[in-house]
Amino acid sequence: MNWPSHGSNPQYLYESIDIPMPEERIDFSANINPLGPPRELKERWGNLFQFISDYPDPHSSLLKSKLAAAEGIKETQILVGNGGAELITLIGRMIAGKRVLIIQPAFSEYEEACRVNHCTVSYHQLEPGDWEFNMEALSEKLKVADAVFFCNPNNPTGIFYPSSIVKELVEKCHFHSCLLIMDEAFYDFACDYQSTVPFIGKDSNVVVLRSMTKMYSIPGLRLGYMLASERLIERAAALKPHWSVNALALKAGEWCLDSKEHVRLTKKLIRHERERLVQFYRQSDFEVSPSSVNFYLLRDPSVDVQLPLFRFLLEKGIIPRHTMNFPGLEGKWLRFAIKGPKDNDVLMEAMLEWRKDR
Amino acid sequence: MNWPSHGSNPQYLYESIDIPMPEERIDFSANINPLGPPRELKERWGNLFQFISDYPDPHSSLLKSKLAAAEGIKETQILVGNGGAELITLIGRMIAGKRVLIIQPAFSEYEEACRVNHCTVSYHQLEPGDWEFNMEALSEKLKVADAVFFCNPNNPTGIFYPSSIVKELVEKCHFHSCLLIMDEAFYDFACDYQSTVPFIGKDSNVVVLRSMTKMYSIPGLRLGYMLASERLIERAAALKPHWSVNALALKAGEWCLDSKEHVRLTKKLIRHERERLVQFYRQSDFEVSPSSVNFYLLRDPSVDVQLPLFRFLLEKGIIPRHTMNFPGLEGKWLRFAIKGPKDNDVLMEAMLEWRKDR
Repeated sequence: MNWPSHGSNPQYLYESIDIPMPEERIDFSANINPLGPPRELKERWGNLFQFISDYPDPHSSLLKSKLAAAEGIKETQILVGNGGAELITLIGRMIAGKRVLIIQPAFSEYEEACRVNHCTVSYHQLEPGDWEFNMEALSEKLKVADAVFFCNPNNPTGIFYPSSIVKELVEKCHFHSCLLIMDEAFYDFACDYQSTVPFIGKDSNVVVLRSMTKMYSIPGLRLGYMLASERLIERAAALKPHWSVNALALKAGEWCLDSKEHVRLTKKLIRHERERLVQFYRQSDFEVSPSSVNFYLLRDPSVDVQLPLFRFLLEKGIIPRHTMNFPGLEGKWLRFAIKGPKDNDVLMEAMLEWRKDR
Repeated sequence: MNWPSHGSNPQYLYESIDIPMPEERIDFSANINPLGPPRELKERWGNLFQFISDYPDPHSSLLKSKLAAAEGIKETQILVGNGGAELITLIGRMIAGKRVLIIQPAFSEYEEACRVNHCTVSYHQLEPGDWEFNMEALSEKLKVADAVFFCNPNNPTGIFYPSSIVKELVEKCHFHSCLLIMDEAFYDFACDYQSTVPFIGKDSNVVVLRSMTKMYSIPGLRLGYMLASERLIERAAALKPHWSVNALALKAGEWCLDSKEHVRLTKKLIRHERERLVQFYRQSDFEVSPSSVNFYLLRDPSVDVQLPLFRFLLEKGIIPRHTMNFPGLEGKWLRFAIKGPKDNDVLMEAMLEWRKDR
């Protein structure tokens, strides 16, 4: 079976699993804010038309200046990218041929970027169940790694590892001269997030990746950024295609950073829906990961590989994310985005029906 | 002096040359269709909003299918890119470490992509004056080259080298097992263009690059494509970041391909304005390159490096493209986009004023 490597674009999933795609669908496979883009962006959409006929600013100056102010960091320590995926590609090139440790399960693009750049890849596994970090075992592996990828809050589990763990990891990586790439694509959904930006110093080996497409619901526009030392930012920038970030993403990004109320409302909604879903799943004998963000892993413990449940939902037009390409999960879980109340209701109803049938 | 490496974004140019940027400006430094985007795109702009909240199709299937039909080529021989610049970056990686010949003057990104990938770069110079191709001299250089970049219609001269020359070049490259990268970013402005697509065969060493941002005036959205053998397309695709082409560019691209009337009107306008400008320049003792497209090189033969004329125009808010970073030109020419009648009138008036002053 040729599983699609990512969520969204369900036409490819239905094709690969050979189920006709229902007209009515709810896509839980992409972890995008169910409130949609900030109101300001919708209202000012007409104004964006004028920006399509000029080349984008290749230096992203205005957006960088806003990000620098928001994060308390220098503009020279920021690189704006064409989505997090472009930044991961650039990092792959920077560590070409090196020994790379990936804390798994994780976003599949890390390994993809490493493989294409002939890195030697090894894993540190967060084990399903308690998903414990196990710093001791990790430490041993760091001794023989040049770089480590850590996705926190973790995709696909949604678990947020607290700053005490992050701090220890930063110190161990510093000690072993290992580049630490922290992917914080979902940091702004985590209620108890504490900034990792203070770990970025003049000569630090820490790279923080952020995405603006999830919270602001603009994955179609593509926008992310990298925070690191000036030295690392310069190296990454030299590898980036000219004008890789389009003009609409830049302008939308500037506007989104002003939408503080949108972020607050989103977090409130997600927390409420997450609690509601978790309670339901526990009562209905499903296992869920202890997520702190806008998606979670789920399994029916009475089934090993969740393919029957997956097919059952797909036939109803309910689209989970398969986990076939997540090392350590291999289809034994399904990932779901937390959507609005109505969509979550539909999902829970389908789950009850699934339960009833067996 | 730290000259900006490209046109557009004039704020960086004014900064580098230390002239206050006038409020009123006409930017002749970017070669974009003066008619703007097709009417259809403007009218349907509101519809595009819905596409920002979904991930773009990473396979660009709909756009590829339209391109395949338009060009008479297989979809598997097309790679859609985040502007021509991304595709050039990918090619740079594919020829990393190789011996690369660049037919100069040319778009500076070729050399940039080669340098960053540790290629050995040499030039074949089209000499100012007749800008003759000189196939004999080129042939000698092809013997020791692994790849050659050829921009046709040429940027910055605007000269279109006819299919007889292209055919000979393709054959010579085939004979010497040299990869030929033909950048046709401005092909759709050339009235006498003949398709190079038939040169792309199953095992051919020919890569054709196209841009959709110039004719359709969407440089802010970023969109280009590569046509080549399946083998080369697969290699390039493996190096491309996931979702690198945003959803708006994809949708806009599909719509633009239907705007045949827009292309016809543009070509007609450009030809008319070009003839008017060339006649004026000849009468006023300026030297211009025999362009077939929507930009041209110009010099005042009474001056060597055109810096005084450049400054004179910039102070008036008329923005040419400097040629400091074009090998063989080194500031002895200025490049101008062909804009609409009003803007071209303002330019000609300024040129008359410049003439009067000396």
